[in-house]
Amino acid sequence: MAYRQLSIESIAEYLQGIPEMKKVFSSFNELDIREIGDGNLNYVYLVKNKEKPNESVALKQAVPFLRIVGESWPLPKERMTIEIKALLKASEWCPQNVPEIFFYSHEMSLVVMKDLSSHGVLRGQMIEGMYFPKLADHISTYLAQNLFHTSDLFLDHREKKEMVREFINIDLCKITEDFVFTHPYEQNETNVYNPELKESDIKSIQEDSNLKISVAEMKKKFMTEAQALIHGDLHTGSIMASEEETFVIDPEFAFVGPMGFDLGAIIGNLLMSYFSHEYRQPLLGREPYQYRKWLLETIESLWSEFVNKFEHLWINHQNSSGDLYWDYDSGVEHFKNQREKYILDLLQDSIGFAACKMMRRILGLAKVADIADITDLKERARIENITLQVGKKMVTERKKFRSISEVIDLAQEFSTLK
Amino acid sequence: MAYRQLSIESIAEYLQGIPEMKKVFSSFNELDIREIGDGNLNYVYLVKNKEKPNESVALKQAVPFLRIVGESWPLPKERMTIEIKALLKASEWCPQNVPEIFFYSHEMSLVVMKDLSSHGVLRGQMIEGMYFPKLADHISTYLAQNLFHTSDLFLDHREKKEMVREFINIDLCKITEDFVFTHPYEQNETNVYNPELKESDIKSIQEDSNLKISVAEMKKKFMTEAQALIHGDLHTGSIMASEEETFVIDPEFAFVGPMGFDLGAIIGNLLMSYFSHEYRQPLLGREPYQYRKWLLETIESLWSEFVNKFEHLWINHQNSSGDLYWDYDSGVEHFKNQREKYILDLLQDSIGFAACKMMRRILGLAKVADIADITDLKERARIENITLQVGKKMVTERKKFRSISEVIDLAQEFSTLK
Repeated sequence: MAYRQLSIESIAEYLQGIPEMKKVFSSFNELDIREIGDGNLNYVYLVKNKEKPNESVALKQAVPFLRIVGESWPLPKERMTIEIKALLKASEWCPQNVPEIFFYSHEMSLVVMKDLSSHGVLRGQMIEGMYFPKLADHISTYLAQNLFHTSDLFLDHREKKEMVREFINIDLCKITEDFVFTHPYEQNETNVYNPELKESDIKSIQEDSNLKISVAEMKKKFMTEAQALIHGDLHTGSIMASEEETFVIDPEFAFVGPMGFDLGAIIGNLLMSYFSHEYRQPLLGREPYQYRKWLLETIESLWSEFVNKFEHLWINHQNSSGDLYWDYDSGVEHFKNQREKYILDLLQDSIGFAACKMMRRILGLAKVADIADITDLKERARIENITLQVGKKMVTERKKFRSISEVIDLAQEFSTLK
Repeated sequence: MAYRQLSIESIAEYLQGIPEMKKVFSSFNELDIREIGDGNLNYVYLVKNKEKPNESVALKQAVPFLRIVGESWPLPKERMTIEIKALLKASEWCPQNVPEIFFYSHEMSLVVMKDLSSHGVLRGQMIEGMYFPKLADHISTYLAQNLFHTSDLFLDHREKKEMVREFINIDLCKITEDFVFTHPYEQNETNVYNPELKESDIKSIQEDSNLKISVAEMKKKFMTEAQALIHGDLHTGSIMASEEETFVIDPEFAFVGPMGFDLGAIIGNLLMSYFSHEYRQPLLGREPYQYRKWLLETIESLWSEFVNKFEHLWINHQNSSGDLYWDYDSGVEHFKNQREKYILDLLQDSIGFAACKMMRRILGLAKVADIADITDLKERARIENITLQVGKKMVTERKKFRSISEVIDLAQEFSTLK
């Protein structure tokens, strides 16, 4: 079927024509269809049977232009092909942490999936100070399962390289290359600054030799290192969560890239939440440390649980592989040394990427509501400067870090409220 | 035209049917056709007009199996597609260092190119102790031009990623992954050892924790880092040279990989020549150091000239790009710092790859004649152990090297004859 853009008016008829939909909806006569997308890139609709409200799906369709600008800004709708393939791939390894897919069409650039509207977006809920006791467990599982099983540590050489080819994602990678790794670190007209941020603060980032070289190194890694199939945009706005369940959504930026980019994205966003709550917790009338402590603990357990799960998968795979490489008397110990070195490199990558993701949210075009919605601009600038200075230290000194707790220590050191 | 395997009998008629060949041959009546391939993978023929011997070409055709084994070992003939594309790409940037192509056919998996038979293979000529005063200049040009212009430092993001896709080279990369980075470092049945090499010497490589982790890191880099279009097999057997001219041939292993792999291949092979001449020069009745000194000087100038040329290309491109990244008062100096860091990383990569290429030639299946043809097996084992020990130090301590002269010093330190 050739591509056509659906609308609230045409969706019911479209869904009725799809055999898979009969398993979800007992009737198509009274569908309640609402648009729920945030409106930047795609259209997202919630479709519910008015007669039986538990019969519901989310329908996401890409349009061939940047929606907020209009048809004058073309964007290939093929990004939905990547998103669908990435969702399917992730559901092979941790179906419990990605939305169930009922139907998809590459031609129509659309996917029909589980209605997650009972789960809020993580970022918004964290701004309100809500706790997610299972977040670290779920996200560490999602990352360990996906990153390990799409890397050369697990995949056959042919399968891996065909995956690289299949997931080449030129246009969406370019957005990251520009808006995460370039524009925020130069005097670019796309940047947006809090007017209370001093010029000297901005220059302390944009004109620092070590920092700029380090960011360029992270950019090179992003552009060249085909380590595993990554989500590519794993911030707290790409996660839907309740206390019990966690779903990772929107993998349209997926490509075969460095593992640390996903780990860094989530760590960086949790750190920004931590800094923002220096301002937000007192405002919510709360004792300022308790929630922030939970955030730091979440970072720490997310990392350490990731390491445990990743190593577990690696050891099991190695033991069943029949490989000769570590098959000698001291091989068990040497293989352990290798894993430690690999994990340390990954930690340092993750710290470098987390830093880039943090600093760009302060100086670049795209902000995070956690910080950018702070209405007191002087307070916002104070939080922004903490973010920038911690980011600067993280990226320039990333090779000195030996454990995630050193990152936590650094964040606490820069925060004013203890 | 569908694929068919050519033979000495069918080549004349085939060439006569190709319009481009009429520019080379004034007549097809008296062609002298001889097979000159080394016979591992492909068929190579030399075609000469008996009446006018300066009318000649080389014709290379891939067959869909490993030639030395036979049809029981299938190899995709599509490797010739990669070879042709890589030759064409290199001839964009340094036509003087690759054979001129007169005609090619992806369907027939063949290429017709300049007859280089007046230039010997570099390895054989170096075994005989011949000097090549322009080698460092030519190869450094070839590498600087090709590596720079196929990297993200030069290419547009889209062109680069389409190049990655186009040059995915699954089967030939697998040969390198196995025979350069894996089998030689484990007790693999494909390995071939000089019987005079002691088991303890072999174990000092195959059971050393740091060494094996380092080799695995180089393998990971080879498998994941899409830095530039590399030749992929740049040893001294892939170079045809006279005193005046140098041609790089046989890029069938080409793919978008780490730059240091090409630099390391040539450095490693020159080092092995250096070690071998500890035995060969006295045998040739020569003062043992003079030729070896030339080899070390060649390594040193190959690297330093590469750096000069690469930096020159980079600076010119940056200055004409209109990029904002380094466009501020101290930007010139900071950009210089960036280049230094980039080049240092590349040196350390090259040293690591050189080491892998050296050690595998001692322990793995594929040998280099420089060392493996030494008939005195005890002497050969002595040279092999020097190669292994220098390789071990290079790969495990690669991050400590700050200049190419430290590599030269190390090689001299381990050589017995001063």
